[in-house]
Amino acid sequence: MTHVSIIGSGNMGQAISAIVAKGGNTVELFNSTDKDKAVTGEVVILATPYPAYEQVLADRADQLAGKVVVDISNPLNFETFDSLTVPADGSAAAELAAKLPDSKVVKAFNTNFAATVASGNVGELPTTVLIAGDDADAKALLAGIVSAGGLRAVDAGSLKRARELEAVGFLQLTLAVGEKTPWTGGFGLA
Amino acid sequence: MTHVSIIGSGNMGQAISAIVAKGGNTVELFNSTDKDKAVTGEVVILATPYPAYEQVLADRADQLAGKVVVDISNPLNFETFDSLTVPADGSAAAELAAKLPDSKVVKAFNTNFAATVASGNVGELPTTVLIAGDDADAKALLAGIVSAGGLRAVDAGSLKRARELEAVGFLQLTLAVGEKTPWTGGFGLA
Repeated sequence: MTHVSIIGSGNMGQAISAIVAKGGNTVELFNSTDKDKAVTGEVVILATPYPAYEQVLADRADQLAGKVVVDISNPLNFETFDSLTVPADGSAAAELAAKLPDSKVVKAFNTNFAATVASGNVGELPTTVLIAGDDADAKALLAGIVSAGGLRAVDAGSLKRARELEAVGFLQLTLAVGEKTPWTGGFGLA
Repeated sequence: MTHVSIIGSGNMGQAISAIVAKGGNTVELFNSTDKDKAVTGEVVILATPYPAYEQVLADRADQLAGKVVVDISNPLNFETFDSLTVPADGSAAAELAAKLPDSKVVKAFNTNFAATVASGNVGELPTTVLIAGDDADAKALLAGIVSAGGLRAVDAGSLKRARELEAVGFLQLTLAVGEKTPWTGGFGLA
């Protein structure tokens, strides 16, 4: 059994929390008023919007040392919906990993809409959580939690692939905003 | 009725050719021995590997003026399978558009495996052709050809979005090579 801390109690935080619990693992969900409570999970999922990561790290970087830290963000410019806010040759996950050298940073869930985490499907396909990272054990631990919760986990490669995962997440958001795919849908993997 | 020229008679060229014909449009398929025959289609689909585009343009750039030119490429480094060969802030489509200022360049089909163009489905989802470009008429013309042929066409935005489409195509290829998704599958859009 793995203890999981989720920072951010919005749609994604809640949906992932339910998956963790469904799989028989334990979960603590932090909202913005829980700043003084330390995270105790072996796995810490950052489920706040990307701009809030800076404050989370200011408050908790030391608590994250040695832990698996899961970045689910899509670092969009939400004013223009036309670009990401990270460098073209980088990713939010790479920036986070640089700031947390003592953590095992994994990218996951950013290509999943909250409704598909909750429902377990994307149209007729099962919801697939794509996981990228440089630490095989960290990825396997998260994949086990995801699978136990009833979703499909797929290893998408090294943390370098976070760049492509963030491109998928970005594109998917523009398609949903443009009503080309429902918020209960998006990309599924056959 | 639209006349379509397809340069490249591999799996993708053949599959797209069948879709065009199925929709009641006319198609001419060029292979590598047809270099001296001019393209006559209003729409020209480049269905060669990306490295061969240079030769196609050397042979035919003047023939492509005024036409809708469809870039279906995934400009991967096929030795490492770890990066694209185009700049991080660009795309193959953007490079092509710069070289063909008198053509209307559209990105499409690069997120579809040939088998899904032929079958019409990605697992239980219909095959979706994502189309990006800056010329609305060119996108609508291609979307009409795709829809008439029985596939779903979705406008993915401006040609700037080709960068994200190429990231999707790249990621999808790495997942297939890693046996995380079948060559008859990949990403579907709900």
